[in-house]
Amino acid sequence: MPVNLAIPTPEQLLPVKGISLGIASAGIKKAERKDLLVIKLGDKAKVAGVFTLNRFCAAPVILAKAHLACGQPIKALLVNTGNANAGTGDDGLARARRTCSELAAQLGCSAEQILPYSTGVIMEPLPVDKLVAGLPAAVADLKENNWFDAAQAIMTTDIQPKAVSKQVVIDGVSVTVTGIAKGSGMIHPNMATMLGYVATDAAVGQAALDAMVRHAADHSFNCITVDGDTSTNDSFMLIASGEAALAEIGDVASAQYTALRDAVTEVAAQLAQAIVRDGEGATKFMTIRVEGGISREECRQVGYAIAHSPLVKTAFFASDPNLGRILAAIGYAGIADLDVAKIRLYLGDVLVAENGGRSPAYREEDGARVMKEAEILVRVELNRGVADATLWTCDFSYDYVRINAEYRS
Amino acid sequence: MPVNLAIPTPEQLLPVKGISLGIASAGIKKAERKDLLVIKLGDKAKVAGVFTLNRFCAAPVILAKAHLACGQPIKALLVNTGNANAGTGDDGLARARRTCSELAAQLGCSAEQILPYSTGVIMEPLPVDKLVAGLPAAVADLKENNWFDAAQAIMTTDIQPKAVSKQVVIDGVSVTVTGIAKGSGMIHPNMATMLGYVATDAAVGQAALDAMVRHAADHSFNCITVDGDTSTNDSFMLIASGEAALAEIGDVASAQYTALRDAVTEVAAQLAQAIVRDGEGATKFMTIRVEGGISREECRQVGYAIAHSPLVKTAFFASDPNLGRILAAIGYAGIADLDVAKIRLYLGDVLVAENGGRSPAYREEDGARVMKEAEILVRVELNRGVADATLWTCDFSYDYVRINAEYRS
Repeated sequence: MPVNLAIPTPEQLLPVKGISLGIASAGIKKAERKDLLVIKLGDKAKVAGVFTLNRFCAAPVILAKAHLACGQPIKALLVNTGNANAGTGDDGLARARRTCSELAAQLGCSAEQILPYSTGVIMEPLPVDKLVAGLPAAVADLKENNWFDAAQAIMTTDIQPKAVSKQVVIDGVSVTVTGIAKGSGMIHPNMATMLGYVATDAAVGQAALDAMVRHAADHSFNCITVDGDTSTNDSFMLIASGEAALAEIGDVASAQYTALRDAVTEVAAQLAQAIVRDGEGATKFMTIRVEGGISREECRQVGYAIAHSPLVKTAFFASDPNLGRILAAIGYAGIADLDVAKIRLYLGDVLVAENGGRSPAYREEDGARVMKEAEILVRVELNRGVADATLWTCDFSYDYVRINAEYRS
Repeated sequence: MPVNLAIPTPEQLLPVKGISLGIASAGIKKAERKDLLVIKLGDKAKVAGVFTLNRFCAAPVILAKAHLACGQPIKALLVNTGNANAGTGDDGLARARRTCSELAAQLGCSAEQILPYSTGVIMEPLPVDKLVAGLPAAVADLKENNWFDAAQAIMTTDIQPKAVSKQVVIDGVSVTVTGIAKGSGMIHPNMATMLGYVATDAAVGQAALDAMVRHAADHSFNCITVDGDTSTNDSFMLIASGEAALAEIGDVASAQYTALRDAVTEVAAQLAQAIVRDGEGATKFMTIRVEGGISREECRQVGYAIAHSPLVKTAFFASDPNLGRILAAIGYAGIADLDVAKIRLYLGDVLVAENGGRSPAYREEDGARVMKEAEILVRVELNRGVADATLWTCDFSYDYVRINAEYRS
């Protein structure tokens, strides 16, 4: 079961003026399952996004990047589950193009104004006829108050839908930020497709929107995955509908930009954490905080060595304070001049290791107490600089193996 | 159960003249278990070794490297299981020193002539009194024909002992190479301690022996683990007793060197493969071969991306030809200019992917047939150079989680 992850009620998800969402069941992989989502944008909307760096990036990712680069106003995003359309070569590109042109025909725009996204099994041909046949129902379903169903429609192995809304007052105007995400393969989160869509009714200039989506990704989805080490389909999109009664935010040094950026980042971080909480087989939610590094990058390097270690993750699953495994992970993180004698390791508020070994004050029962909790903070002080980084991960259970061994059956 | 791993009979393990081995049960972690091994070397013996690059390297690793650097003739190696003496700071170093001085007193040499090795749980104080109390029994047990018991004495979560013997004729003289190894944590092999000890009765000059141990490691133990990404205790030692009726091998360009090096490397490779076959929870043995790379390093990089992927490993466990997961791993291996359209992926003799997607000739039943086998070859042609690399790994099962969740209990 997901770790401390509340299912949002439809009422908690605030509509974003100028953004409507339509859902359909196209039978792409399974009948009767919501597997198609159209996000339609109003005329004033702007879009920015970050995408996977995987060299085998999926056909829809190639197309979405190309269409964004065309510079025409984006009219709709089209998301399907059940098939990733990745590792499918030129044929996959042709199929993705057809989904765009068919939706464009129905919305009265050009194919380049549609951004496609797919998630599901890799290296199978996209059943494009089924997808296209489902489009009219999705278009007929378009409405602003549809975020909850949209969150459900993009789920794959997710147990719970992930959606967050927040309001922030900027220059006296209440601005809405609502987002949805999917993804749950967590032992190497980079390998399970994560999709995230966050929308605001504020107006934001394109350059500021590009900067905002990168900032938000770096402090949310990129804290549970590794740049350059992502799935074939990962995408995170930020939409500004421009419908709020507020001047366009264009200056990244302005207070308005910072206020909106922080709200967007908080929504993205909650969505990213929801993905970890719903991690495949997860029973625990771990925050890995690394402090006192020379750079944020090296703090992330140490954090990921801990967060990716199957030995650490199985120890957390077992509630076993086998903390030597964390020290071993720090030691092989790849920092050549790391002085292990300077490192302090904390489990929750318990000092575990210092001076290259176990702290004299450490008692096994203190470690065991923290390990029994559902949310655990692992904190590492490197004591060699002032940079820090925070990552989120989950433990590693029998159910992870079961879910991934049975995924296609 | 281990994958196609035969237990050697004691008779198959040839003694190496000048090398005697003694075993004892010191009760370091569990009573009645063989957990102490002394390998005593004759006067003509030379030793070379490679060690973990982990920054949290264990106290015995620090000492063994320091003692080797002293340049005095090594008289004995001392191995204990049940406790890794890693992450134990200055106190751990003092305990490791005491084990050396106590054994040295019994053998009539200096502490610097003893090399210590430990494997087991991390960050617990080494019960040095128990270890020292067990030394007389191990010394009393010293005999040349004791390799089988030695292989058993160094096991931790290993299901089967790992030992290999081989003879090679050099200049008309039959030279013996016998080795033992332990280790079985395989999903990130780098995190489970691997110990390997290979001995030959040939005489080898120190520089040649140093080169030989590096070559053998690079083509055996380093093909199942990552340099710089190793456990706190990994060690691989090569001993040349110098008792064979053969001139000392000193020239690395000589035919004699090559013949012995290849025999040593073959023994080391069989031991390394045995570790994979006995991988924690392993049900399948996979050979990952990457060809046509620009450098051996980039081939290894691609190979490790595949070999480390939990999604790939669980698919092999399930005998599910979910080959897109392999393509995804190749894609995120970190080779920025990789042209995915040039890659060919084979599963056994079956061409799976080409031109950036599934091969038109591929049929799911062909992939399923290969996936059902206990030994599977994954072959990747990068088609951008002439370098290649071969790695060995195993699948990822429920039992891996069980073993590592319960390790300390």
